[in-house]
Amino acid sequence: MAFKTGDFVKVEKDGVFYEGHVIPGAAGYITLKMVGGGYVAGFSENEVRITILPPVSVLSEPPKKVVRNAAKGAGIKIRPSGKKITIITTGGTIAVYLNQETWTVSPSFQGEDLLLEVPELEGFADFKIRDVFHLLSENMKPENWKELAQVIYDEIKAGADGIIVTHGTDTMTYSAAAAAYMIDTPVPIVFTGAQRSPDRPSSDNHMNLLCAARAAAGDIAEVLIVMHGSVSDDYCALHRAVKTRKMHTSRRDTFQSINAFPIANMDYFTGELTFLSDFAEYAKRGENALKITPLLEEKCAVVKFVPGANAAVFDYYVEQGYRGIVLEGVGLGHVSDDWIPSLKKAADKKIPVVVTSQCVNGKTALGTYETGLAMKEAGVIEADDQITEAVFVKLMWLLGQGFDYEKVKALISTEMKGDMSPMILD
Amino acid sequence: MAFKTGDFVKVEKDGVFYEGHVIPGAAGYITLKMVGGGYVAGFSENEVRITILPPVSVLSEPPKKVVRNAAKGAGIKIRPSGKKITIITTGGTIAVYLNQETWTVSPSFQGEDLLLEVPELEGFADFKIRDVFHLLSENMKPENWKELAQVIYDEIKAGADGIIVTHGTDTMTYSAAAAAYMIDTPVPIVFTGAQRSPDRPSSDNHMNLLCAARAAAGDIAEVLIVMHGSVSDDYCALHRAVKTRKMHTSRRDTFQSINAFPIANMDYFTGELTFLSDFAEYAKRGENALKITPLLEEKCAVVKFVPGANAAVFDYYVEQGYRGIVLEGVGLGHVSDDWIPSLKKAADKKIPVVVTSQCVNGKTALGTYETGLAMKEAGVIEADDQITEAVFVKLMWLLGQGFDYEKVKALISTEMKGDMSPMILD
Repeated sequence: MAFKTGDFVKVEKDGVFYEGHVIPGAAGYITLKMVGGGYVAGFSENEVRITILPPVSVLSEPPKKVVRNAAKGAGIKIRPSGKKITIITTGGTIAVYLNQETWTVSPSFQGEDLLLEVPELEGFADFKIRDVFHLLSENMKPENWKELAQVIYDEIKAGADGIIVTHGTDTMTYSAAAAAYMIDTPVPIVFTGAQRSPDRPSSDNHMNLLCAARAAAGDIAEVLIVMHGSVSDDYCALHRAVKTRKMHTSRRDTFQSINAFPIANMDYFTGELTFLSDFAEYAKRGENALKITPLLEEKCAVVKFVPGANAAVFDYYVEQGYRGIVLEGVGLGHVSDDWIPSLKKAADKKIPVVVTSQCVNGKTALGTYETGLAMKEAGVIEADDQITEAVFVKLMWLLGQGFDYEKVKALISTEMKGDMSPMILD
Repeated sequence: MAFKTGDFVKVEKDGVFYEGHVIPGAAGYITLKMVGGGYVAGFSENEVRITILPPVSVLSEPPKKVVRNAAKGAGIKIRPSGKKITIITTGGTIAVYLNQETWTVSPSFQGEDLLLEVPELEGFADFKIRDVFHLLSENMKPENWKELAQVIYDEIKAGADGIIVTHGTDTMTYSAAAAAYMIDTPVPIVFTGAQRSPDRPSSDNHMNLLCAARAAAGDIAEVLIVMHGSVSDDYCALHRAVKTRKMHTSRRDTFQSINAFPIANMDYFTGELTFLSDFAEYAKRGENALKITPLLEEKCAVVKFVPGANAAVFDYYVEQGYRGIVLEGVGLGHVSDDWIPSLKKAADKKIPVVVTSQCVNGKTALGTYETGLAMKEAGVIEADDQITEAVFVKLMWLLGQGFDYEKVKALISTEMKGDMSPMILD
């Protein structure tokens, strides 16, 4: 049936009804900005029945460029920090903006618009905006990590007291880990983003940005991920980038510290920090000198083992000249014992193979069973409690320094930037 | 330094000391059965300093074949069920037995030994033992799943009122999901195992076996995974196999229902079930007729996307003639947009590509952003809230039936055996 952008429609699929405005989308599909939550959904045209509805009056209001969070954070007062903070934007959901004239979700939101979303920040710091990328984060690549690290470095060198990087959540862990390994920093570098776009009532942009700004002006001079700590609008968690993983496709508290606690939680309303562990040591502002080493060996891979997987799928990477491989095993880090000769072949070619676990939580322990011992004998390196995302970036970074095989093997299982936990969470 | 099997030694590595008995291990390594917890650890001989200690008297007791759980479950009384239960053993930690003569951890534990571990089960049912494999579960393959399903089927056909399968935990999810798709069952099929071997004080074998036996005699006629529900010895969770994932390398409550609640929890002491959701519908004993379809297309793969990954690593599977691919994307299921042509190529060759999320939790939602819409347009199928492990097995099974591409695409995203949740956990 004939429909056009902006039409208010009802779509029936398999007996379920969806209502919303038609927005531009792929050919053969009808794409809706749904009423209510504001989610976008696409349907194959020939699988649905479409009815055009009369326009809904509430949606014919004059378009506003920015949805202000007047109701959010009511009563929050924050005092001027006297700090210089650079906000570096890279794209992502936090920078997605719903154009109510064309009904498209556009990535053209600028850093300035972000600040307008959080009126409380007016006067909090001397903000400078650098719009670096407009990328959905699934499209971020190692070359972007290097460019981003350089911009962060330049800003700190030019006098910034703290950095906020707004970033899509999908690959935020990888980018933040890259910044952590590449940059020694005397000031906080805070990654933040949003799981729900600014046009949705449940958007997490206000709380995340406000807490990120306080963290950037604060004393924890590490690369942090600052996002919702619970499903409510009550506090943010300050995660150490290299220990953090995206654990839910849609929840606002999607980021979780793995095999570690967040360094601290921050109250949304007061900004007060609650440190979460006796092990909450962190680098203080001014403790480390600024330094950058934006080098990466990009020819690295992550291989996930599953039962029945042919060892040839591992050999492929060796044959293709990959320089380092992270191998996600099962349980304590195991792969099937018919993979052992392939692991040995990689070691013979001096290709470091770092073993993590697809359990996500817990440490690898290849010394416990026969298969694990054989894997160790074949030369693999245990990630211990490091997560796949961070150890993958660390491997690229170590190889990028030109270190030899033995040195990479030694350093990959040596704590750097807080990537191995002093405690056992078991 | 010269050491031999059975020596009681102290090993120093990087200033940390380990004490235990030397057990046979890989060449160039010293392998210890540690005192206390009983964990096994291996060390490269040239990275440690080894001191041989005088023997510890408590360890020179006469060897006992089986460590009885006299102290465990004290006071538990269970009444005869009058049921016939077949215990099928396949190996794994639950069947690992520490031979105190040779100090080796041996997989030669038989089903009979398992029953001795749980004296309370005497008289509970008419038990029959079938020792099918002695495998550490990382070595289980699709051909084993087929053989196991056939044994389960044969036992039910021969009159078993319930089945217990003891299995290594590393790949239990995969094997249990395979049984779920292959077998329609009128009786409970209960997978269980252990995270800690029977010689360790913290072994979970007693509680898991006891609860598994009650579940096998019970009314929930589905393929279940029954394991510790918490880190304490208080209750087991009865998970639906196809919704369950191993989430910790060592914790006893490692198995978690993903995007679902367990069907019920079972009190260790009383056996009482607590149903966890209004959605706790399940197949009742006798409701379904027995049927087996042990067919699998084994040429299927799981590919995990990471930032910067070259689309050629996906093309490899298409070029190698793989018949189905599960693609673990980031966030809502995304991959980088430079993978789109490769996804299109797979679709053109009628190779189903099923998208899951490496977030583990939550649903895929490719209708939300540009990249996702382009992936859908390129022909991928969303797993929705199905987990990677189960949907990988489901894909092998659907292709194994000889269904054509369109039918596989339709069925993969259709609920089977409870693999898609009626509720949104967000």
